[in-house]
Amino acid sequence: MSGVTNSLLQLASEVSDEPAEREMDVLLATGEQTTIALMAMAIEALGGRAVSCTGGQAGIVTDGGHTRARIQNIAATEVKAHLDEGAIVILAGFQGITSQGRITTLGRGGSDLTAIAIASALKADLCQIFTDVDGVYTCDPRVVADARKIPEISYDEMLEMASSGSKVMQARSVEFAKKYQVPFEVRSSLNNNPGTLVTEEHPNMESVVIRGVSLERSQAKITISDVPDKAGSAYSIFRALGDAGVNVDMIVQNVSKEGVAKISFTVHQDELGKAERALAPVFETLGISQLESETGIAKLSAVGIGMRSHSGVAADMFEALAAAGISIQMISTSEIKIAVTIEESQADEAARVVHSAFGLEKGPLA
Amino acid sequence: MSGVTNSLLQLASEVSDEPAEREMDVLLATGEQTTIALMAMAIEALGGRAVSCTGGQAGIVTDGGHTRARIQNIAATEVKAHLDEGAIVILAGFQGITSQGRITTLGRGGSDLTAIAIASALKADLCQIFTDVDGVYTCDPRVVADARKIPEISYDEMLEMASSGSKVMQARSVEFAKKYQVPFEVRSSLNNNPGTLVTEEHPNMESVVIRGVSLERSQAKITISDVPDKAGSAYSIFRALGDAGVNVDMIVQNVSKEGVAKISFTVHQDELGKAERALAPVFETLGISQLESETGIAKLSAVGIGMRSHSGVAADMFEALAAAGISIQMISTSEIKIAVTIEESQADEAARVVHSAFGLEKGPLA
Repeated sequence: MSGVTNSLLQLASEVSDEPAEREMDVLLATGEQTTIALMAMAIEALGGRAVSCTGGQAGIVTDGGHTRARIQNIAATEVKAHLDEGAIVILAGFQGITSQGRITTLGRGGSDLTAIAIASALKADLCQIFTDVDGVYTCDPRVVADARKIPEISYDEMLEMASSGSKVMQARSVEFAKKYQVPFEVRSSLNNNPGTLVTEEHPNMESVVIRGVSLERSQAKITISDVPDKAGSAYSIFRALGDAGVNVDMIVQNVSKEGVAKISFTVHQDELGKAERALAPVFETLGISQLESETGIAKLSAVGIGMRSHSGVAADMFEALAAAGISIQMISTSEIKIAVTIEESQADEAARVVHSAFGLEKGPLA
Repeated sequence: MSGVTNSLLQLASEVSDEPAEREMDVLLATGEQTTIALMAMAIEALGGRAVSCTGGQAGIVTDGGHTRARIQNIAATEVKAHLDEGAIVILAGFQGITSQGRITTLGRGGSDLTAIAIASALKADLCQIFTDVDGVYTCDPRVVADARKIPEISYDEMLEMASSGSKVMQARSVEFAKKYQVPFEVRSSLNNNPGTLVTEEHPNMESVVIRGVSLERSQAKITISDVPDKAGSAYSIFRALGDAGVNVDMIVQNVSKEGVAKISFTVHQDELGKAERALAPVFETLGISQLESETGIAKLSAVGIGMRSHSGVAADMFEALAAAGISIQMISTSEIKIAVTIEESQADEAARVVHSAFGLEKGPLA
């Protein structure tokens, strides 16, 4: 059924330059509705008993944010009734209804989100996400040949990995799972290998300092050197970027001596032009003259809840990079992540040396 | 959007030889859902304000007869609210939901039925059905060149025309309109000509003896000559045909002297084989030996509520046919219809002479 959503978008563009999002949702929801009916038929043809449910039938109630709705609550009465009767329930992902009965879609990552959300509503023991990779790896195996599949990872680590380039799942679904304590497993639909279990952290997990290393390429860095050092300057800058829909990633600020600050941040390089255009009016207001931008940057992150109780992790990472002759540009840290920007041309090498420095290629993890 | 339903049926046949009707409805309902969203977008692109509604959203509640559900009631609260706000409501035809929230489809003629039903629920002044013909004609204009469009026709006449080969609308929708007193107009989506108003009969209508003439081709006649003249014989025969899904049209019976009856009836010639197979076991039980069948038959009907108060209408019709040398085989009458079967090769000529005998080519009707 691949390509269906694109065909529907094409049909919409033929009748309207700016279709109402409300109607886009009615249109796009047909894709999954087609799939669940066919899936239920296919399972029944194999001798199982299956029942399809649209988002509305499954009681997935969302807010009215069409094309990117948020789930508000799930009244899974019908799904439960079908399960109690022994049926396999095929639930349309990516969709819901508002409390007024309007059809909504959940936007990017909405199918995974539906799975996690219904698992939560049903108090399921486990939610299995079948995808095209067989789990979360210590690093991208195309970059680091001896990367290993991670058997178990905490929600927080998964979130940091997701926000750092390991796009197995959208952060949104992981956040939902963390909030409602839904353990889930990411595994392949193409084989029976065990996948990666994503769950609440437990003491044993801390014995591993770094769970994985992730890499994000094609980044651009913008540096503003003369931001007036007064309240509201940073707000004006990032508000303008937010309003323009620019996703800002790392932000680093230092106050210089002369009452002006220097702010650097990264964006995807495809959004560099949009970011510069969004900033122009703000620069005029704030009296900023200098903006430097640089492309060809990568971000490398080492993630692990173990670093909370282990000292010297950052130093180990920086030492490994220095030994390989790789210069670090920006540094940003969270409680369980150390991220650096480097030249994109050195990204693969950097990933390999950091992966090796923390011994991620060795033995079973956790 | 033509061909969408066939594509969906094709997809279903690829996954299952015998797809559950419940899932067929989930699948087929996506066709209209796609269309209503696109239609609403197109109207908004032209500057109107439009809102789409699925059958479920429009409160069209049906029984659970999947793929051929019957409308039970309509809770048009949402449709009314949208109309009150000045929106154009684009309602998915052909579909509804059960009181348990399962998606259903209404089967053949279901889109017209939806239109009539929602018009009834909204107490609309008029329901307009836009189709590919610009109204109901006194006869098929391809057969009778001077056939005229009928400006106004009663529900009962429309029903008799529909059941007599004038397939502008399914009898089912007309019956619903009659039951709930919904006046509707059949008109063309390709031009702005006034169409045919279908409404409750009023005294003026009776001044016209015959409203129209309709023709049904490709009929077959089955005659059984030695049916035991006892209670239940006819029942056994027509029960067997009904169970086999054979649509029987005209039925004529005469009791002969020797305690046996002769029954003739017509079916569509495509169903002749099925009818003969269905009758075989009954013949054995009843001790019937003789069955004659004949194809190449047409049915010609003259319809008009005026014949209730005019005598000699049948005689006029038979006279016209006799003058043209056309033999009548079977005759069947209702209060407002006279139907005869004739040889199919004489069908066009028969339609022309009857049309002319009642002066249907002249002046405005009603």
